[in-house]
Amino acid sequence: MARYESPAWQMGQRVRLDVTNLMATAVGPDNGVDEAELERIGPRAAQALERLGDLRARGQVEWMDLPYQHETVERIITTADRLASACDTFVVLGIGGSALGTIALRTALLHPFHNQLRPDQRNGRPRLYVLDNIDPDLIAGLLDLIDPQRTIFNVVTKSGSTGETMAQLAVVRERLKTALGARAAEHIIATTDPTQGDLRRLAEREGYQTFDIPPTVGGRFSVLSPVGLLPAAVVGIDVRELLAGAAEADRYCRGRDLEANPALFLAAALFLLYQRGKTITVMMPYSQRLRDIADWFRQLWAESLGKIRRVDGRVEHVGMTPIKALGVTDQHSQVQLYMEGPADKVFLFVAVDRYDRTVEIPSSGTGLSSLDYLGGHTLNELINAERIATTLALAEHHRPSCTFELPEVRPFTVGQLLYTLEVQTALIGDLLEINPFDQPGVEAGKIATYALMGRSGYEEQARVIRAKLGQARRVI
Amino acid sequence: MARYESPAWQMGQRVRLDVTNLMATAVGPDNGVDEAELERIGPRAAQALERLGDLRARGQVEWMDLPYQHETVERIITTADRLASACDTFVVLGIGGSALGTIALRTALLHPFHNQLRPDQRNGRPRLYVLDNIDPDLIAGLLDLIDPQRTIFNVVTKSGSTGETMAQLAVVRERLKTALGARAAEHIIATTDPTQGDLRRLAEREGYQTFDIPPTVGGRFSVLSPVGLLPAAVVGIDVRELLAGAAEADRYCRGRDLEANPALFLAAALFLLYQRGKTITVMMPYSQRLRDIADWFRQLWAESLGKIRRVDGRVEHVGMTPIKALGVTDQHSQVQLYMEGPADKVFLFVAVDRYDRTVEIPSSGTGLSSLDYLGGHTLNELINAERIATTLALAEHHRPSCTFELPEVRPFTVGQLLYTLEVQTALIGDLLEINPFDQPGVEAGKIATYALMGRSGYEEQARVIRAKLGQARRVI
Repeated sequence: MARYESPAWQMGQRVRLDVTNLMATAVGPDNGVDEAELERIGPRAAQALERLGDLRARGQVEWMDLPYQHETVERIITTADRLASACDTFVVLGIGGSALGTIALRTALLHPFHNQLRPDQRNGRPRLYVLDNIDPDLIAGLLDLIDPQRTIFNVVTKSGSTGETMAQLAVVRERLKTALGARAAEHIIATTDPTQGDLRRLAEREGYQTFDIPPTVGGRFSVLSPVGLLPAAVVGIDVRELLAGAAEADRYCRGRDLEANPALFLAAALFLLYQRGKTITVMMPYSQRLRDIADWFRQLWAESLGKIRRVDGRVEHVGMTPIKALGVTDQHSQVQLYMEGPADKVFLFVAVDRYDRTVEIPSSGTGLSSLDYLGGHTLNELINAERIATTLALAEHHRPSCTFELPEVRPFTVGQLLYTLEVQTALIGDLLEINPFDQPGVEAGKIATYALMGRSGYEEQARVIRAKLGQARRVI
Repeated sequence: MARYESPAWQMGQRVRLDVTNLMATAVGPDNGVDEAELERIGPRAAQALERLGDLRARGQVEWMDLPYQHETVERIITTADRLASACDTFVVLGIGGSALGTIALRTALLHPFHNQLRPDQRNGRPRLYVLDNIDPDLIAGLLDLIDPQRTIFNVVTKSGSTGETMAQLAVVRERLKTALGARAAEHIIATTDPTQGDLRRLAEREGYQTFDIPPTVGGRFSVLSPVGLLPAAVVGIDVRELLAGAAEADRYCRGRDLEANPALFLAAALFLLYQRGKTITVMMPYSQRLRDIADWFRQLWAESLGKIRRVDGRVEHVGMTPIKALGVTDQHSQVQLYMEGPADKVFLFVAVDRYDRTVEIPSSGTGLSSLDYLGGHTLNELINAERIATTLALAEHHRPSCTFELPEVRPFTVGQLLYTLEVQTALIGDLLEINPFDQPGVEAGKIATYALMGRSGYEEQARVIRAKLGQARRVI
């Protein structure tokens, strides 16, 4: 692990968490946490940490060890460099955890208009598309755009049988066969379970190159596995640095001291606030590039924590509803509600100290007051002033918030943020006494879909559903 | 108004609202509405409708009359056709209500990769960008991409003084002056209040072409004004058909009969469900193209209804928290929470009967069961099967939902949907006894921003804020 550690650029690149406005001292006792509570919950939080460490030692949460998969990473980079010169377009076929991490990395770490740049402007790296829906207008629309000769498809499904992804694969496989004949298989790469599932079997049979998703890495914890790393490496993101960031977070998210472990502090604080009715978690980065990290977090948080059954079997509806917001944009959409509406929210802001670019606001020379005060400043100053202003105004309205502070948006800081949020999610799952690693609630919908699509073995369900759909509807 | 009515394609293009799964008969008495309640609330809902009609008659809700602004529309279309041939890129500078409607129209009614198509594939129409943030990485990134000679900027702000938009304008105006000299003004079009504000003054002084936002059309109700119509017309969207759709909705959203007025029924039902703890409204279109209508609705709903003060002065935190979701994508992200988590949500699905494209799923011939059941179907069938499956599964979990059914995604149906949602928002605001047309809660943040940016007149606030920021912070 030494090779990924401590080059000079890491200096000053630690992500910090400002929790000032989570405290009762800032937002009042009904809306913030106080020292006595934190002290009381300390041992319980430490237990959660210990249990997570036990799971890790038993190999049941391999996502925690992804920062250290050096051989895999070197193979990914070698493959990615080869692919980058063999294609001009790289398309991920995947949904949910097979897509959201890749989208988050792409938005955070590429030029905001990467796919519209000329090849030389993107260092000869391919365009990247992630097809995470089956809307025929979307799929046909993308097929309008690409040349099969110059396109590689990366099919990603842990189970190897996800309906949407298999449907996309069937469409793409046929197109490739028509266009390329026997060479079609060279244009498909499968990322899936090492041994199980239909995609694994198909890959073996047709000779697709494959990458493994370790068995105990669930979709929503898979961004640092080949699921996210291969596409990222193909478009030139420094995945070694990304993992070094995750390793850094692994280091500081291990300690029992709440004051030194952001994942543990935040899990404890959000758990305490949940108990007093803060059931909605708003993640609001003040960075266009970090907005899809909020969307990635939305899956992590919702699917991990939204559960009907406690680990001891008690039945109760548990869960915090995540919301992705975007600063400053959503100040003009959601902040009215956040200030004056129900006091049911906690805000996780993400701040950026130094944006990659600096844009000066020229003095207008017009004498118009709404232009004059801006002249001579930068957009960089303005966006951070608005972030601070919003945080302060929310605190005055007794709305609790905290802020992840990224010195810059780069792989090392993004790796820290992703890993910290994963650990935090596992820890709060323990505090809530639910299993954060399963998703039993999506089964009913899957079965109903199989039934409606006429899959064999689901004839009885199909009969029941048809009967239900045949009943009178109320339509206006 | 005759000219926009009843061409042959309107046949069968009525948007319908299926409310079956909002009813207690489908989801149980704790989670659905029953006939007796609906009967009881009928007169109160009719009053709300009447009061809205009174406001309209007094000219205080001009957004309701936007479907009938024929002269303005003809001027927009003439201008748009001229602009479309004069530029290859059209950039909107605006935020909140000045951006969200345009984004919604763009995503719904253009090719999903419009900006990446060749000019001939987009009928010679320009690329369209909406800059609704001030992140310097975003702004500089877009400036990398465009040629000032071939770009028109549409600055949109109702007040004529929105900080973010004025900052963008200052940046762009300077770039244009450097590149084009005296011809810079021909590349800026201002959409703002007819007489008031700094942008109006600047436009007059510098000779920008302008379009008016009628005085009682607030930002979040402005999509059918020149705010949304000009950019839409520039890229070739049929804005006459869009307004014909809105006029059609105006026709069916006038009646007092709940069973025939979707806006009134939904306002009443969501109000009743809010009173029993359904405080979160999830809009989930099963269409990639309609996803930004959910984002537009998010502003409409949050900013209109999130209020601390009732119209009679009582202080109480009111509001429903909107969430934008996307089918089928979010089945793999949010549906676990929706099924098993807290019973605090109502779902507004949007269905599409006929997508523009049909994508067949070929038979794979592999004998693999997770591919075999899909072969011979279409993605169109699959997406609708998943929507129905999710709706049914939610109902089984006692989670109420309704579905807007669009025969197709086209201007006529989109116009109906937007207008219906606007009327519904105004009506539920009345039922909640709040003012849905103001947004006092964003003032504190604006003032703090002025103070932090050193605007004159805000020196005292700046002193207070600096003192607060100088206090000890708790950072992990």
